[in-house]
Amino acid sequence: MNKPDPFANLRFVLSHTSHPGNIGAAARAMKTMGMSRLVLVEPRHFPDPAAEARASGALDVLEGATVCAALDEALEGAALVAGLTARKRDVGPGDYTLREAALELAERARSQPVALLFGNETSGLTNAEMDRCQMRVSIPSNPLYSSLNLGSAVQVAAYELRLALLEEKACTVEPAEALATSEEMEGFYRHLEQTLYRTEFLDPAQPKKLMSRLRRMFARARPRKDEANILRGILTAVDKAISR
Amino acid sequence: MNKPDPFANLRFVLSHTSHPGNIGAAARAMKTMGMSRLVLVEPRHFPDPAAEARASGALDVLEGATVCAALDEALEGAALVAGLTARKRDVGPGDYTLREAALELAERARSQPVALLFGNETSGLTNAEMDRCQMRVSIPSNPLYSSLNLGSAVQVAAYELRLALLEEKACTVEPAEALATSEEMEGFYRHLEQTLYRTEFLDPAQPKKLMSRLRRMFARARPRKDEANILRGILTAVDKAISR
Repeated sequence: MNKPDPFANLRFVLSHTSHPGNIGAAARAMKTMGMSRLVLVEPRHFPDPAAEARASGALDVLEGATVCAALDEALEGAALVAGLTARKRDVGPGDYTLREAALELAERARSQPVALLFGNETSGLTNAEMDRCQMRVSIPSNPLYSSLNLGSAVQVAAYELRLALLEEKACTVEPAEALATSEEMEGFYRHLEQTLYRTEFLDPAQPKKLMSRLRRMFARARPRKDEANILRGILTAVDKAISR
Repeated sequence: MNKPDPFANLRFVLSHTSHPGNIGAAARAMKTMGMSRLVLVEPRHFPDPAAEARASGALDVLEGATVCAALDEALEGAALVAGLTARKRDVGPGDYTLREAALELAERARSQPVALLFGNETSGLTNAEMDRCQMRVSIPSNPLYSSLNLGSAVQVAAYELRLALLEEKACTVEPAEALATSEEMEGFYRHLEQTLYRTEFLDPAQPKKLMSRLRRMFARARPRKDEANILRGILTAVDKAISR
C-alpha cells in the first residue's frame, strides 16, 4: 500500500469569497507550494474570467476546485480545521501563530485530512465558522495594518505548510491515532446541546455562547475517534437515565 | 541617541516591473509586515491606478516609493543585497533559502541598510542584477511550478523578515490564563464518575479504565477555571434531571 500523501490531505477552504481574482490568486499560491485541493463555499462569482487570469499557470487547480453550498460539506472528513484570522480575539489556548499551526497541521496531514479555512475578504470568519475550527491561526503582522490580501494569506500559509511538511521527521515512531472527523464532532456537539436542553442547563434564550465555550474546550483536546464515541455513549446514557 | 529601527533599514527593490498591479500588491504586502521602504527601478507603468487599487490601505507606502533610473541608485548604502530567484542556478556558497537569508538580513538590518531585490515578473533578475547580490535567495517551492506572483513573493519575504526581526522579542505572548487546579479537576473527575454510575454508563466492575481514558482526553484540553466550573455545572444539571 502506498504511503498517504500529506500534500493531498491538505485542503484550502475559501468561504464566501467576494472577488474571483482572489480565488485565482489562491489557486496559483497553492500550486507553487505543491498543493491542489481547493474548496469554495458559496463564492460570489465563480467560475469567472478574473479568477482564471490570476490563476496563471494554476488553471488545473482552479478547474479542480470543489464548490460547496455549506461548510459541512467543505469540511467533511477533516480531522483538524484551522481558521485564519487577523482579528484580535481573546488570546487563549486555541490560538496559534501560523508557524506553530503549520507544524501540527503538517504532522496530522501525514495520516488524516486537514483543512485551512479562510473567511470573506472584508468580514473574515463568522463566529459560526470559527466555531468549527480547533485552531485559530493568525499570521504575525503589523498591528496598525494587518490586512493581508486573501491570495497573499493563502501564499504565506501554503509556504509555511510546505516547509513544515518537508521538514525531515526524526522518525516519529508512534503512528498518530485517528482523530474524530469534523462531522463526527458536529454530531457530538448537536447531541450535547440537545441533552443540555433536557437537563435545563442551557438557557434556551442564548445557547450559543455556552456552546461556543464548550466547543473551544473540547477542540483543544483533539478527541480521537474512540473518545468521541465514548462522549456520545455518555450522552446516550444520560438521555436514558433522564427518561427513566 | 535612538536605537536604529531595523524595519527602516529594510528596503524592497523591484526592478523593471511590468504590471503596476504587482507594485501595489507589493506595497500592501510590505505594510502588513511593518515595512515601508519601496524602491522601483524603471517600472513600466508608474504611478498607475492599478497600483493604487491593489495597494488598498497601503497607499502611503506606494506614494512614498522612490523611482530610480538605475540599480546603483536603488542600492545606495545597502550593506547586504539579497536577490530573489526562482531559477535554478548552480547552487553555491552564495545560495540561501529565504528562511536562512532572513536571519542574516535581519541581523544586519539592526545596524545597516539591507536590500531585497526582485526582478521582472517574466524574466527574473538579469545576470548583471544578480551580480550585485551577495545572497541569491530562493523561496522553497514546487519544482514543477515555482512561479510565485511578484506580490506573493514580496509577501512571503516580508513575512519571514518580520519573524526574523522580532525573534529576539519573540516569546509568544501567552497570557497566563488561570487553569483549573489539580484539586479542582479531581473534584470534577469524582463528580463525573458518580454521575456516570447513576446513568449506568460506567461498568461498576471495572470503572477505572474508562475514567483513565476520559482523564487523558480532558487533560489534553487544559481546562481553565471557568471551563471546569461549566463542566461541574453540567454534571449538577444532569444529576437534577435524573432525579426529577
